Amino acid sequence: MELETSPLAQPFPKLPSIDGVMLRTVKAQYKDWDRHDLTYAELAEGTSVAGVFTQSLCASSEVEIGREQVKAGTARALVVNAGNANAFTGYRGREAVEQIMQQVADHIGCSPQQVFVSSTGVIGVPLPKDKARDGVAAAFAASEASWQDAAKAISTTDTFPKGAHTSAVIDGQRVDLVGIIKGSGMIAPDMATMLGYIFTDAAIAPNFLQDLLSAANAQSFNCITVDGDTSTSDTVLAFATGKSNAGRIENSDSPGADAFAAALSDLCRQLAHLVVRDGEGASKFITVRVSGAASNDSARKVGLAIANSPLVKTAMAGEDANWGRVVMAVGKAGEPADRDKLSIAFGGVWAAKNGLPVENYDEAPVAKHLTGAEIDLAVDLGIGDGQSTVWTCDLTHGYISINADYRS
Amino acid sequence: MELETSPLAQPFPKLPSIDGVMLRTVKAQYKDWDRHDLTYAELAEGTSVAGVFTQSLCASSEVEIGREQVKAGTARALVVNAGNANAFTGYRGREAVEQIMQQVADHIGCSPQQVFVSSTGVIGVPLPKDKARDGVAAAFAASEASWQDAAKAISTTDTFPKGAHTSAVIDGQRVDLVGIIKGSGMIAPDMATMLGYIFTDAAIAPNFLQDLLSAANAQSFNCITVDGDTSTSDTVLAFATGKSNAGRIENSDSPGADAFAAALSDLCRQLAHLVVRDGEGASKFITVRVSGAASNDSARKVGLAIANSPLVKTAMAGEDANWGRVVMAVGKAGEPADRDKLSIAFGGVWAAKNGLPVENYDEAPVAKHLTGAEIDLAVDLGIGDGQSTVWTCDLTHGYISINADYRS
Repeated sequence: MELETSPLAQPFPKLPSIDGVMLRTVKAQYKDWDRHDLTYAELAEGTSVAGVFTQSLCASSEVEIGREQVKAGTARALVVNAGNANAFTGYRGREAVEQIMQQVADHIGCSPQQVFVSSTGVIGVPLPKDKARDGVAAAFAASEASWQDAAKAISTTDTFPKGAHTSAVIDGQRVDLVGIIKGSGMIAPDMATMLGYIFTDAAIAPNFLQDLLSAANAQSFNCITVDGDTSTSDTVLAFATGKSNAGRIENSDSPGADAFAAALSDLCRQLAHLVVRDGEGASKFITVRVSGAASNDSARKVGLAIANSPLVKTAMAGEDANWGRVVMAVGKAGEPADRDKLSIAFGGVWAAKNGLPVENYDEAPVAKHLTGAEIDLAVDLGIGDGQSTVWTCDLTHGYISINADYRS
Repeated sequence: MELETSPLAQPFPKLPSIDGVMLRTVKAQYKDWDRHDLTYAELAEGTSVAGVFTQSLCASSEVEIGREQVKAGTARALVVNAGNANAFTGYRGREAVEQIMQQVADHIGCSPQQVFVSSTGVIGVPLPKDKARDGVAAAFAASEASWQDAAKAISTTDTFPKGAHTSAVIDGQRVDLVGIIKGSGMIAPDMATMLGYIFTDAAIAPNFLQDLLSAANAQSFNCITVDGDTSTSDTVLAFATGKSNAGRIENSDSPGADAFAAALSDLCRQLAHLVVRDGEGASKFITVRVSGAASNDSARKVGLAIANSPLVKTAMAGEDANWGRVVMAVGKAGEPADRDKLSIAFGGVWAAKNGLPVENYDEAPVAKHLTGAEIDLAVDLGIGDGQSTVWTCDLTHGYISINADYRS
């Protein structure tokens, strides 16, 4: 099935190269297709790494191994396989990952523990070792690839390649952060895992990079949802080569720590939004702002309950200011709420305030707002100071077509 | 919008009358329609009552009042309004409920606390007091209605009326249990609340009736899901008139307690299944059996995670034995699980065992099973003795059409 480009797609931006990162892509032929499906990134010695992974208890071998690898904090290479998720493949899947780690380690002259591997695609089929071996060997000899090449090569069912860039000034020196990401919901027969990779020439201690990535993740990737489903392989890795002239960031007291944190956070949010923009069948990008909650975490849970509600998502698809469905979603979130203090707005216009419909509220601007591709839905719980923003897309016939009509 | 009858509909069964219950239905005209929309049930003196209610923290006044009323344990009447949910209507909504309670209490000569009220339909509009007053007055004078009349009168967006019957023998005397229910998912612009009412001529202590109803609820209404959304008004009430000749059931040691419990449990399960069969756009009734879990409760949570997964539900709509999506749903449930011990079967045929696809498994009977209207999906977690069964329907274009294409 050839999918049409999402109407919410954004053009691939111009991204700077990152000193200490060399990209290559090749055709490993993990599926019977004519495209690059193996991405290889070689990283400078001394590169710090941090990662966040799916909470799934049925995670792939790649995730299990990766969780351990990031603890050591250094990386020399990344291999991403597209077309085969290698999930639910038992010891045979694990062997394939270990083979790749060893092969790259032998080539570079590093520890296998410094070689990170991700896989995305069909599940239940062990990654073919021969194709992986030939593909990795070909990558060693391939010419250098662009960010866009890599963004395409890690994709499976994405309808457009996704990349973003931010920068920060540390002690007068500029550092760049580039990210590429794939993911679009979860499309049969693939588990359309979200895989994101961030590269920076900043020098930063691995533990602190992990702290910053975890914090940024909580405000970005953990605040988006397409259909509430979670893949067995979701992974975001951040690599810091330390090749810029800026001083090394050791902790939150280091010069530039705040600037770098802000740039990382901004980048993660941009990447997360791109995934929502490629949500299956999405026709609207929806920002859900929750305020007045008991805590920030409570606000996020309420926001996700709204963003995951099929009834809210179909109402948005139908351009229907159905705040009753929002009330319902708040009620089921299980978080502190008081029906008689709840207020709901679409596009900045309050439809309900303090538990009652706003009398004679002007529906015209709301109706106009809902016809657009960018929807703003605000909910004030009126009981505290907690706030959070989450992002999602609408639920349309396109989602059903992609997931039900297409047979694996 | 006129909805077509669900392909999973069942004909309304022949139901016995229950001594001590008198039904009446009238046209209160809560909406501009030509149908009965107010149901009145008068109950014999000494009727015990128990109830289970939505967990929503934004519940309607009817639910808030009902939660208090059941504590007293006796009932003399029930009034159900269809067409207006009276939810999110603040003090004005509460006044309308209290007016009905008082009006009926004056008529019967009982306490207002013995008059139960439910409402279902549009939200955000206070129940009109004048229509309620006239409707209730008309009900006092109306001729007796049948179970099917009442099942229709409490309906909103249901595509078929729903009723069921069981019986038990207590100390040689037969008692009957009859239930009617409405609910079909949640359709705009209504909050298509699930409202269920059970009537029996058994004599039973209110506290014990509550225990049995709560237990039955945990295995029935709490084990079904159409779209994971929860209404602000969901209510199931059980009324026991005590008019049979069977002895009074005081507690679990009373003669016939087990038989009555089994009949109540069976009735609740039948009623719950009818709601799933009217799920919006449903084309398949799906039974999800989870075994080998850490506990029964854990099994239920895993089952609901599977049953609420849009990807699993669309796969079933597409008749696709996509066990990878089931793995994903198990993984996201957050319950104890071990990827390498997980087994998955469709229609009794194991597609994956102990974390690996079954080699050379015979897809033909699975493919045939999935073309049917009744799907059996079994998951064994392989780590304990916990088990649970939950029920859901598939997710189709019909759901989107009903919820997105239809404007309120």
